[in-house]
Amino acid sequence: MLRSVVSQSLSGFPEWLPEQRIVEQQAIDRLRASFELHGFAGIETRAVEPLGQLLRKGEIDKEVYLLHRLHGAEEPRTDRTLGLHFDLTVPFARYVVENAGHLEFPFRRYQIQKVWRGERPQEGRYREFTQADIDIVGLAELPVHYDLEILAVMAQALGRLELPPLRMLINNRKLVQGFYEGLEISDIPAVLRAVDKLEKIGPDAVGQLLQAEGLSPGQIQACRDLAAISGSDDSVLDRVSALGVSSAQLDQGLTELAAVLAGVSQIQQPGLTIAASLNIARGLDYYTGTVYETQMQGYESLGSVCSGGRYDALARKGKMTYPGVGLSFGLSRTYGPLLSRGLVTGSRKSPSCVVIAVVSEERRAASNEVAAQLRERGIACEVAPAADKPGKQIRFAERRGIPYVWFPAELTDSGQAAVRDIRSGDQVPAQADRWQPPAADLHPQPVWTEPQPAT
Amino acid sequence: MLRSVVSQSLSGFPEWLPEQRIVEQQAIDRLRASFELHGFAGIETRAVEPLGQLLRKGEIDKEVYLLHRLHGAEEPRTDRTLGLHFDLTVPFARYVVENAGHLEFPFRRYQIQKVWRGERPQEGRYREFTQADIDIVGLAELPVHYDLEILAVMAQALGRLELPPLRMLINNRKLVQGFYEGLEISDIPAVLRAVDKLEKIGPDAVGQLLQAEGLSPGQIQACRDLAAISGSDDSVLDRVSALGVSSAQLDQGLTELAAVLAGVSQIQQPGLTIAASLNIARGLDYYTGTVYETQMQGYESLGSVCSGGRYDALARKGKMTYPGVGLSFGLSRTYGPLLSRGLVTGSRKSPSCVVIAVVSEERRAASNEVAAQLRERGIACEVAPAADKPGKQIRFAERRGIPYVWFPAELTDSGQAAVRDIRSGDQVPAQADRWQPPAADLHPQPVWTEPQPAT
Repeated sequence: MLRSVVSQSLSGFPEWLPEQRIVEQQAIDRLRASFELHGFAGIETRAVEPLGQLLRKGEIDKEVYLLHRLHGAEEPRTDRTLGLHFDLTVPFARYVVENAGHLEFPFRRYQIQKVWRGERPQEGRYREFTQADIDIVGLAELPVHYDLEILAVMAQALGRLELPPLRMLINNRKLVQGFYEGLEISDIPAVLRAVDKLEKIGPDAVGQLLQAEGLSPGQIQACRDLAAISGSDDSVLDRVSALGVSSAQLDQGLTELAAVLAGVSQIQQPGLTIAASLNIARGLDYYTGTVYETQMQGYESLGSVCSGGRYDALARKGKMTYPGVGLSFGLSRTYGPLLSRGLVTGSRKSPSCVVIAVVSEERRAASNEVAAQLRERGIACEVAPAADKPGKQIRFAERRGIPYVWFPAELTDSGQAAVRDIRSGDQVPAQADRWQPPAADLHPQPVWTEPQPAT
Repeated sequence: MLRSVVSQSLSGFPEWLPEQRIVEQQAIDRLRASFELHGFAGIETRAVEPLGQLLRKGEIDKEVYLLHRLHGAEEPRTDRTLGLHFDLTVPFARYVVENAGHLEFPFRRYQIQKVWRGERPQEGRYREFTQADIDIVGLAELPVHYDLEILAVMAQALGRLELPPLRMLINNRKLVQGFYEGLEISDIPAVLRAVDKLEKIGPDAVGQLLQAEGLSPGQIQACRDLAAISGSDDSVLDRVSALGVSSAQLDQGLTELAAVLAGVSQIQQPGLTIAASLNIARGLDYYTGTVYETQMQGYESLGSVCSGGRYDALARKGKMTYPGVGLSFGLSRTYGPLLSRGLVTGSRKSPSCVVIAVVSEERRAASNEVAAQLRERGIACEVAPAADKPGKQIRFAERRGIPYVWFPAELTDSGQAAVRDIRSGDQVPAQADRWQPPAADLHPQPVWTEPQPAT
């Protein structure tokens, strides 16, 4: 079952075999269905943005792919030079501002598209990859209950994907920043960066970094104590308060975290847990309130597979701000390693559930007619390529993993049309206007080669 | 109802409002469903190919977008420089050769993806656009019955799109080339190019071009006579034979065209006609047998919206050839003008069918629970953003075109939960575990602002 990534010829640009694409496509379909059930409108934005737009948030470290035309004149690079988008947030923010007059706020949208980054590829990190984003964006204001809702929507969507166990983690930028303010720390971004290294370099090394930043032993201890707090109920808030630090910003952060945590217990998804984890620092630079990360059990080295947070202003135009909250699921980051390690693949190579055997080229139209009747009732099928011996027509189906072969009356002993389950060899008389395969056989399904968590 | 294309800021990169995207998305879904019912496997290829691959078929006139990295060193352009694909055929051919060992032939695949061309934009011609391709590719051989099948599959798929009337036209490269051979014409490509201008410049001007090519009056008349032949039955073949020209190649072409025409009468799609039209010359350079074009009534200036044909070798590796036959539907070319002229848009701005009103922020969880029960049964809905007065919550739905508002018991006179059709004002008591909207309201639908042909 183990299959390697199809094309190694362009590192970082994975492509999948038809049976693997079935897995990815089903994931996209399920995400989309979940998002739409929650009223998220699907949009697509163009693949390109002017460079000035792409670097607007100071993302100059991103390795962007710029475009130039084969026959175009060489032009100096400017803000108007086109580059491929590296995420779906920047283009969405631009789309919201450009179309504000045509949109209704709060505007909820999902967007499942490819993005590109010219960075060094590694497992789960590609140069071309698919993201599935949901955001809710308001006009001037956006109530905090959306911080809970966006989490609930994504949790429900991810819960339908049959992935290894997921752990969604929450923190709040105001809480952490307010805590540091309460500690009278001056260079807060530097401390955030140091604390972010906790998992990587351990508490002692982080302590040394903080010492180098001029923090007192008491401040360092408080930073470590805060980062150690995690859990999924109100006790998290109590443990923060028990640290004896206070500031208006901290209070605001605690209130927001409380509002999200209060609803978390209602989000019941098999194979998915949600908890506050106050050591999450990554992304705090960009976000202004709630932040989210997600780890996939057994794949922690991939980093977060679903991240996001609250922006005070996803976009801004003149005096008008568009606050937003969103989550971005790394579809390629998650499925790439699972597919390329061969842990999941499709149950067959084709959408076809049935191959209609052909008696002779003269009788092909009769087999076409059987196929048309099955399709009429939603049964995917195809007609055999040639009027070969029955055994050869069966092997045609077998090689594709197609479970059934339909034999016209001329090819059966009984003289009645019949359908054979080629896995068991069972053959039963059948009529094209009523035969129905078991639901499990109707469409190809992902097949996991290792036991997955009960879902 | 008339809406302009959203973003004029980047000419040639159209983007759609949520209600417009609904139309495009439904078209994609219907195409996909049709293709899968016929056993076509979905694949995606990466957006980029090495320049050497892109120009392999001598397509040097194509205006390709090349990529370079923002922080990468300036490198001289080579065959390995990456460019964005300009169609889905070149990448598919490469994919087939690379993965031949993992694929089963004849291999039938569909591919619905964006492609890019750096050309001057005009109506229906964009720099970024979506194509929907189907191809069947064989190993060393591919029977001619697939020339008919690919046409039947695309006809059925297009027939489900509710487009203005479509006219699919067929010709055969062997027939035309063989006819010219039979006339002892020496420079056949030059004659093909001249005849291709028939519609544009008229028969007299074409006659002059052919005269300049050194053709005799008799040869010129025969070329014109052939180009004038069209129809959907066997009489087409008789009329070619009646011209008294003969060659082995012509016979082969007539046999192939006969095989396709014989099945055309069985392809019954409302709003779609299929006919042989022997003046189709465009693309004959690339194809080796059957060729297809499609015109949309009232939009002839867009050119062909669905084209394709038979290749003797879609791809080749060493001594192995992969003959194929395929059709490519220009989704953006077709829908772009319809959407930007405002002839079709979605029935609402949101997938939501219902807005659940909120009694108070404290009771939001109760409204969430109603929403969860509706979603459980496939009814898309969203909960109101704030516990505003009922009138304001109704307007929230109204502005989005969402047809129903759900009122919890606290908000109704009867003290029972109720659902209101805000178009009619009708309000009925309702229970979240059984209320069902009419099927027509369940999902947003395309709404045409001009009468469409009966479908």
